[in-house]
Amino acid sequence: MPASPIRKLTPFADKAKSQGKKVYHLNIGQPDIETPEGMLNAIKNIDFTVWAYTPSEGTLAYRTKLTEYYNKLNYNIDPSQILVTVGGSEAITIAMQACVNEGDEIIIPEPFYANYNGFACMSNVVVKPILSHIENGFALPEISEFEKLITPKTKAIIICNPNNPTGYLYSKQELEALRELCLKYNLFLFSDEAYREFCYDGKEFISPMHLEGLDQHVIILDTVSKRYSACGARLGCLITKNKEVIAAGLKFAQARLSPGMVEQIAATAAVDTPDSYFEKVNKEYTMRRDTLVSRLNSIDGVFCPNPGGAFYVVARFPIDNSDKFCQWMLEEFEYDNQTVMMAPATGFYSTTGAGMNEVRLAYVLNKEDLEAAMTCLEKALEVYPGRVN
Amino acid sequence: MPASPIRKLTPFADKAKSQGKKVYHLNIGQPDIETPEGMLNAIKNIDFTVWAYTPSEGTLAYRTKLTEYYNKLNYNIDPSQILVTVGGSEAITIAMQACVNEGDEIIIPEPFYANYNGFACMSNVVVKPILSHIENGFALPEISEFEKLITPKTKAIIICNPNNPTGYLYSKQELEALRELCLKYNLFLFSDEAYREFCYDGKEFISPMHLEGLDQHVIILDTVSKRYSACGARLGCLITKNKEVIAAGLKFAQARLSPGMVEQIAATAAVDTPDSYFEKVNKEYTMRRDTLVSRLNSIDGVFCPNPGGAFYVVARFPIDNSDKFCQWMLEEFEYDNQTVMMAPATGFYSTTGAGMNEVRLAYVLNKEDLEAAMTCLEKALEVYPGRVN
Repeated sequence: MPASPIRKLTPFADKAKSQGKKVYHLNIGQPDIETPEGMLNAIKNIDFTVWAYTPSEGTLAYRTKLTEYYNKLNYNIDPSQILVTVGGSEAITIAMQACVNEGDEIIIPEPFYANYNGFACMSNVVVKPILSHIENGFALPEISEFEKLITPKTKAIIICNPNNPTGYLYSKQELEALRELCLKYNLFLFSDEAYREFCYDGKEFISPMHLEGLDQHVIILDTVSKRYSACGARLGCLITKNKEVIAAGLKFAQARLSPGMVEQIAATAAVDTPDSYFEKVNKEYTMRRDTLVSRLNSIDGVFCPNPGGAFYVVARFPIDNSDKFCQWMLEEFEYDNQTVMMAPATGFYSTTGAGMNEVRLAYVLNKEDLEAAMTCLEKALEVYPGRVN
Repeated sequence: MPASPIRKLTPFADKAKSQGKKVYHLNIGQPDIETPEGMLNAIKNIDFTVWAYTPSEGTLAYRTKLTEYYNKLNYNIDPSQILVTVGGSEAITIAMQACVNEGDEIIIPEPFYANYNGFACMSNVVVKPILSHIENGFALPEISEFEKLITPKTKAIIICNPNNPTGYLYSKQELEALRELCLKYNLFLFSDEAYREFCYDGKEFISPMHLEGLDQHVIILDTVSKRYSACGARLGCLITKNKEVIAAGLKFAQARLSPGMVEQIAATAAVDTPDSYFEKVNKEYTMRRDTLVSRLNSIDGVFCPNPGGAFYVVARFPIDNSDKFCQWMLEEFEYDNQTVMMAPATGFYSTTGAGMNEVRLAYVLNKEDLEAAMTCLEKALEVYPGRVN
């Protein structure tokens, strides 16, 4: 079981804090954005007296309300095509367990969300990574690269769109190319859309759900965590029009009995969150991204693409080893009694040696803190003993 | 992936209800008991504005409060020995993943909680069942029976105490015998104590945590579901004094990021639930058990032991096949436009053919409903076409 690159440095951060250092947390996708008031009020207004199990697939009330949200996006689904899960995490594990047999293979463009590895490991599924590259902003690798990896054991492709950790937003053209590939080789296309709400510069979000003829192949993995800044709710869902997958997924859902009841009540209310909430959040993140990307690129030896979505960037640093560097930042470095916690990109690659000079930064802090963190980082890179040019 | 015996008949129950039949749900451990007021008030009084991730192992505040609860029971633990999980279900999967390698074996007295099978299946762990018998109330099988099954691949024994599905409460003598066995063969002892609060007739609850010299072997699996009638909270924990197991379990916990935040706030408050709550609940369940067991044994051809704990019984019926019978109850039978949903015991055995004439009943309804359900059942057994004598 691989350690989480997002959390494995936590003991060093705790130690730094116990020594009185201020640590800017750019390592984890925990936004400081407030949860919508309507969602919090739904928690405060609960009126049940028995905190009971719900159906394993989620309450009908919640799944029905969710179709409102998804059908506004033209997913054209009904409640029977939704399986409510314990966070997006469980949507991923259930998708793997329901669609991929032990020893079968899943192709994932890397760098990818590190926990895919953990879930694949738990499900005894083999991950076949395809390198994407910082030079073109981590665009989808050529389809010919996918075809080189396809074997009779290949069962699915996972994309995360907009991408965690790179922030890359896939174009319609890229998705159409994946569509052809999945049809040609009869593969599932898992689409992790946790960051769907976070697309910038007027760019349009396209889902595989919008593509023709792919209904039996597409599995959407979703969560309320980022959409409503409700990471602690642990509520997600799996959506597919493939009835066999829903039936197989339900068996795994039944083993853990039910998703949380209070969360489903709150998330039902959250569907009515006004557009103004998202507009405000989007504006805030655009400003933060612009701040972060521009500050990073102004640092000598640093390169950072300007991604179209999510709230992460992967940047290239003039360093020998991102694991060492991120740990050194917490253990050895301070500037004005402050330091920065980041996630080494090595943990987002499954190809050994990849990402050694890359780091993921989440822009989940306000502008002022981001500026202070960037100043810290700039000073750190000047004195880091493992600096390379 | 095996189907859940508790939920697999749900479509038939739904159909029966859509036809206007009243269905008494004795199939699932969903109590009608009210959740403690203090726990519900903690939900209503949340004062955070960002519904955030918590640490993967659970908040320090909650783990610290939990030690108060466990140390009253003389478990003598500290917060670092607790891993907070998403329901008792996740405590079971994490224990298996952290302690047992793929292909290794776990011994479980059967009938056992059906989802152990599902979790073992997900973890590629092999379950070796040992038959316990209705004639002696499903007491622990002879230690010599365990020894017959032990191979170099055997890594753990799971007990559920008080037992689901049988309600059997293990004696100190039985636990001492298991202690010797685990020490002799160096096995983990997983103790699922979801029903710890539900011991009747003044019988004492003994945990493997109370046994000498077993600290490195014992893994407690727990949940707030039954204790506080909070099944929909999906909050449990794994407890062990074995540091390696906690460290390995934490990696799996990190993959799914965190347990729910609101649940931890509510469950922290729940630790202060007054004793009077449990005394009242205990009295109610004792009365229900007495009602159910006495009504069952008064039915011609039925035998039901009188269990010492939990809120289940496994009864023997004069029937050909408990799966068929339970489905027939929903599909074909009605008495006064009512019927009963029960869980076929076959799903609680992994030995093929076992439990064919046994059924699990949960006494989670009030006395009046239980009486009505028993009348229904009595009438049903008189006319069931697959009756055998």
